[in-house]
Amino acid sequence: TFGEPGIVLELADLPEPPAPAAGEVLIGVEHAPINMNDLYLIQGVYPLRPSLPSVVGNEGVGRVLAIGRGVDHLKVGDRVLVPLYSFSWRERLVAPAAGLFALPEADPRQLAMLGINPPTAALLLNESIDLRPGDWVAQNAANSAVGRSLIAIAKARGLKTLNFVRRLELVPELQAVGGDLVIVDQSGAVDKIRATIGDARVPLGIDGVAGKAAATIAGVLSHSGTLVVYALMSGEPVTVAPLDLIAKRVVVKGFFLNHPDVELKIPSALRETAPLVASGAIRVPIAATYPLTAFREAVAHVQRGGKVMFDVDGASELFDKVAVEAPQVQAP
Amino acid sequence: TFGEPGIVLELADLPEPPAPAAGEVLIGVEHAPINMNDLYLIQGVYPLRPSLPSVVGNEGVGRVLAIGRGVDHLKVGDRVLVPLYSFSWRERLVAPAAGLFALPEADPRQLAMLGINPPTAALLLNESIDLRPGDWVAQNAANSAVGRSLIAIAKARGLKTLNFVRRLELVPELQAVGGDLVIVDQSGAVDKIRATIGDARVPLGIDGVAGKAAATIAGVLSHSGTLVVYALMSGEPVTVAPLDLIAKRVVVKGFFLNHPDVELKIPSALRETAPLVASGAIRVPIAATYPLTAFREAVAHVQRGGKVMFDVDGASELFDKVAVEAPQVQAP
Repeated sequence: TFGEPGIVLELADLPEPPAPAAGEVLIGVEHAPINMNDLYLIQGVYPLRPSLPSVVGNEGVGRVLAIGRGVDHLKVGDRVLVPLYSFSWRERLVAPAAGLFALPEADPRQLAMLGINPPTAALLLNESIDLRPGDWVAQNAANSAVGRSLIAIAKARGLKTLNFVRRLELVPELQAVGGDLVIVDQSGAVDKIRATIGDARVPLGIDGVAGKAAATIAGVLSHSGTLVVYALMSGEPVTVAPLDLIAKRVVVKGFFLNHPDVELKIPSALRETAPLVASGAIRVPIAATYPLTAFREAVAHVQRGGKVMFDVDGASELFDKVAVEAPQVQAP
Repeated sequence: TFGEPGIVLELADLPEPPAPAAGEVLIGVEHAPINMNDLYLIQGVYPLRPSLPSVVGNEGVGRVLAIGRGVDHLKVGDRVLVPLYSFSWRERLVAPAAGLFALPEADPRQLAMLGINPPTAALLLNESIDLRPGDWVAQNAANSAVGRSLIAIAKARGLKTLNFVRRLELVPELQAVGGDLVIVDQSGAVDKIRATIGDARVPLGIDGVAGKAAATIAGVLSHSGTLVVYALMSGEPVTVAPLDLIAKRVVVKGFFLNHPDVELKIPSALRETAPLVASGAIRVPIAATYPLTAFREAVAHVQRGGKVMFDVDGASELFDKVAVEAPQVQAP
């Protein structure tokens, strides 16, 4: 049943998956993060629900343990992302090899968080066709995982970021990770920004908050700028000053990583951003790691706040995968 | 000085304009409407201000009284629009002939209102490239001059209109002028519409109100629909539900008739809409007409509400234009 993750989740021992068929690989999961989206899925918030019982978990990283016929772009031992939505909170799974690629050498816990937020940030930056090196991109929710990824990807592309945060203590922290301008979203912020950046171009704004925070981003955009809304942390309607639309010709649109048009672009965004994770340019602080057996503590930790990771260890018995019982966390 | 029109306007006798030079025509003004925009200009609301003293008035219709060298697409006696922003509240003026064309036979008072609202409506309808005959266009402020023009133009193009109004008594009135669906903008309206039109396509929404009224239009749009904001009658920020942007991929943009990109398209929009004025399909009820000498009463009438027209009579002395003192209403 769907409901509170701390109540409805159970740890189950399932049989080992079958050997990979043609075009498939067997993946031994090493690490899998817990995202708020995972908890929403378990709570039944989304209209799209898996049939129960189901393993859950959207992201993860693991090693290729076995390869099916016809797979020649991967070899046993390669570290790969667990494909999105293939339910990562388990030790081993079989997945299609198409779209998988060998990840660079890097902290596997950081790689485990590559699948959603970095490509979201990269593809948000692609939503304006008018960006040139040296241009500014404005964003709010700059301290989120998408926001921090965006700072790193923009810098790698030669763009500057103008970052709105809600707490003053985040200013030095985001400056330290490369935010070119970090400013608390409060009255007078737009004037302060223009005093700092002069008439520099700001063709793209990224809004993850909605409500009045969207209007602030629209306010700093240049003529004909694009405002892209990808999340609604405030829970409020998106608000924009009419004259920013009418006189300044700002265009407002939305972004959704799982839209069919967007999904096609994820593989190239992963290839762009994986090296940034490897270099440490994209790095999400991890609050704690838990084994799958401690899933209740892990979920409670996420609900208190902080990025939490499952240490799955499903690839530790590399090549020794026969007849191992594979525990999996599933919503019954 | 700029200020209250009833106070700062004066009637002035100015010399007759000179004979038209090459490429110019002399126009004898017949009728000139008073728009709220005229009053805003006189009040000094806009950042762009004419140097004073200045004749004012943006729209009008008149007869060609004389033609300069090289003008072969017009003849003396043709009825033409006074070019926008050439200051129409006067008996005679010289204007460039380029862009002018002989208007069809029709009530000249109705033709006097052709210059702004019908092309605005026509060009708003061009803001979606995805409109097909039989599609619906949703609009609010449907009882405005733009809204009524839009109903007629949409019908001529084989489109259906879904019209939001704020007062129940407007429903039969707008149905009578061709509104396919007319509905009071109140809670539950969107559900009622979908019950009526089923899953018919609504690719374009037109918003002249801003505030929550914009969110209502976005709510009735189909997937990937376009919401175009052209005015802000409510004075409130434009509001849109984030999921209409993110999940339904609605794009929000603004429209401004005097934007350089848009201005280029006005002549073709005038040629499309002039026959609709001539046929009576576009018709604005006129509350009263006044001579230029009664400009204070005329302005006061506009401020009370209602469409008011100057009866200028500047073409009545056709061909007898030498040494006539030409009274003009100007902001000193």
